Amino acid sequence: MLVDGKICKTIWCKNKKVFIIDQTKLPFVFKTICLKTLGDFCDAISNMKVRGAPLIGVTAAFGMANSMLNDQSDYNIKHCYEKLLSTRPTAVNLKWSLTIMKSQLFKTQKAMRIETAFMIAEKISKDDERACEKIGEYGCGILERILKKKKKIVNILTHCNAGWLAAVNWGTALAPIFKAKRKKIPIHVWVDETRPRNQGALLTAWELEKENIPYTIIVDNAGGHLMKKKSVDICIVGSDRTALNGDVCNKIGTYLKALAAHDNSIPFYVALPLSTIDKNLKKGLGKIKIEERSGTELSSVNTFDGKKIRASNIYFKNANVYNPAFDVTPSAYITGLITEFGICKANKREIEKKLKVKRHVK
Amino acid sequence: MLVDGKICKTIWCKNKKVFIIDQTKLPFVFKTICLKTLGDFCDAISNMKVRGAPLIGVTAAFGMANSMLNDQSDYNIKHCYEKLLSTRPTAVNLKWSLTIMKSQLFKTQKAMRIETAFMIAEKISKDDERACEKIGEYGCGILERILKKKKKIVNILTHCNAGWLAAVNWGTALAPIFKAKRKKIPIHVWVDETRPRNQGALLTAWELEKENIPYTIIVDNAGGHLMKKKSVDICIVGSDRTALNGDVCNKIGTYLKALAAHDNSIPFYVALPLSTIDKNLKKGLGKIKIEERSGTELSSVNTFDGKKIRASNIYFKNANVYNPAFDVTPSAYITGLITEFGICKANKREIEKKLKVKRHVK
Repeated sequence: MLVDGKICKTIWCKNKKVFIIDQTKLPFVFKTICLKTLGDFCDAISNMKVRGAPLIGVTAAFGMANSMLNDQSDYNIKHCYEKLLSTRPTAVNLKWSLTIMKSQLFKTQKAMRIETAFMIAEKISKDDERACEKIGEYGCGILERILKKKKKIVNILTHCNAGWLAAVNWGTALAPIFKAKRKKIPIHVWVDETRPRNQGALLTAWELEKENIPYTIIVDNAGGHLMKKKSVDICIVGSDRTALNGDVCNKIGTYLKALAAHDNSIPFYVALPLSTIDKNLKKGLGKIKIEERSGTELSSVNTFDGKKIRASNIYFKNANVYNPAFDVTPSAYITGLITEFGICKANKREIEKKLKVKRHVK
Repeated sequence: MLVDGKICKTIWCKNKKVFIIDQTKLPFVFKTICLKTLGDFCDAISNMKVRGAPLIGVTAAFGMANSMLNDQSDYNIKHCYEKLLSTRPTAVNLKWSLTIMKSQLFKTQKAMRIETAFMIAEKISKDDERACEKIGEYGCGILERILKKKKKIVNILTHCNAGWLAAVNWGTALAPIFKAKRKKIPIHVWVDETRPRNQGALLTAWELEKENIPYTIIVDNAGGHLMKKKSVDICIVGSDRTALNGDVCNKIGTYLKALAAHDNSIPFYVALPLSTIDKNLKKGLGKIKIEERSGTELSSVNTFDGKKIRASNIYFKNANVYNPAFDVTPSAYITGLITEFGICKANKREIEKKLKVKRHVK
């Protein structure tokens, strides 16, 4: 996608060197960094220099490839797998991509492991990009249909950042929006601020600003009011993990927006590559371990005075804080899933049908 | 209520001088100020040095009394009424208390207007205090009943600040909690941070901390997840304006919490003095003008380095922002209203019954 006129991706590899955008500095400073050690990759994921389920998976794959440069042993494959897997507990893509890497590398002779590892990581990255673009196309169809009926600007509400910064390119929830812009569909995006880390206000708004797409940041509290006022035509969010029955685990607060959409008969879509579906998870409610992150994510915010980004305290000293990072939205509140193989209902039968198509294509 | 062992109120009058706690500096700095001119009173209300529907009403009453010191004319009564009324558009208590002041002062001889004005303002203040204490007693009864059934610590979720800082004393939504503490009922309070101004994290948490009541701050996004997990036994919130049919206008985000409570069969109560009921408003949905406040309330936060409170920027420059301050929760999602005349259902018949009792008592 565009950043000040230049086409960008979130992660890229050149001569077996892996580069990322340091997203903790966005939107204030645009800085790219080269990840050199396993520690760098783990730190990038756990400290959210890269974030978003698809991108985490791709980064982990490159992390394992990078680690092969120094040590191609079985031990190191296992070691990388464990280390990278432990960086974030919720995103299923992490396990998914690491499992592919591990099983493929075990099947490969040691002498070939460096080349193979980078090749597979590149493939995972390319597949993600292609999948996101397809999600964009299918999702854009929904926006076109709303426009056809409404004949006025289409208002989309999104939560957190499921834009290109959360993937390699295009993104998931924002992909239909980027596609709509290219098709000249008149759109406006309500961007949930998304506390505690404000990825909506910081990353989603920045992506839309850079792509010249009309948007407005609102506090997470405001979405219900806007839906009641009929100022929202559709909600589109991403997913960190989706169960086979269609229950969606996503950034904390997603569930509340789904409830409001349901209460106001507004379509609520989840955009996700099928890699986000956890085939071992029959249902999501009560079954997904929800990551609990540090309370300082609430009590400290990044402020920017035009020169320096500073972590600043906004609560009183020793205030008690609890910080669950995700929630689970029951499938009953989800209108549909937008996948790279088309749109389906959030239920077992339809999800399994899509998974079957995917296996067939592979 | 207690602040570092001393008993405090939010507003008090001594020798016809009116003092308030400057709540914009809380919880970092505890500072009281003397309001001297009509401009001081208007500024205190519109810039939220005092906030919360009951306290706004009391402050406006004292503002008019204070203004009588210099000019007891009919013109000045009207002028004060208009000026003070325009400070905040949503809170019905503002109009309610100013209407009492205006009509009583018009009936009073000029020579007596100073004394009368302070007397009525004091009465409005005392009445508020008494009403809040009664709300506390009735609400505490609900907590006792939950404890009796559950036999374990009672978890209450509250949104924004409807504590003693929002009234003269006791508060509305927090009054049952303060009463429960005095009755040694084991409680824990989930405190919604309440973006954009963070009154939950800043004021409610501070009140509870000072009263030694267990609490935990969460982002506004987390409430649904906690309710789904059965970590919430009851929600209690305040109200800025309530329609005759029981629709409740309160801090933006209240509606989302009510939806989540409804979805998880958790009782959702609104605590309010009957002065918060707008008798001219048959229904709330779509009928209440929602105050839209400055976008800098989102993009700028107060940070505290231990010495100085500083307004700091947290968004990128020129980010588009929309900031509606309130939403309306449909009465269908409200289990009951806790008033100074007891608990009632959020419907016209029961609310009118309570209003009748109130008229009878007066």
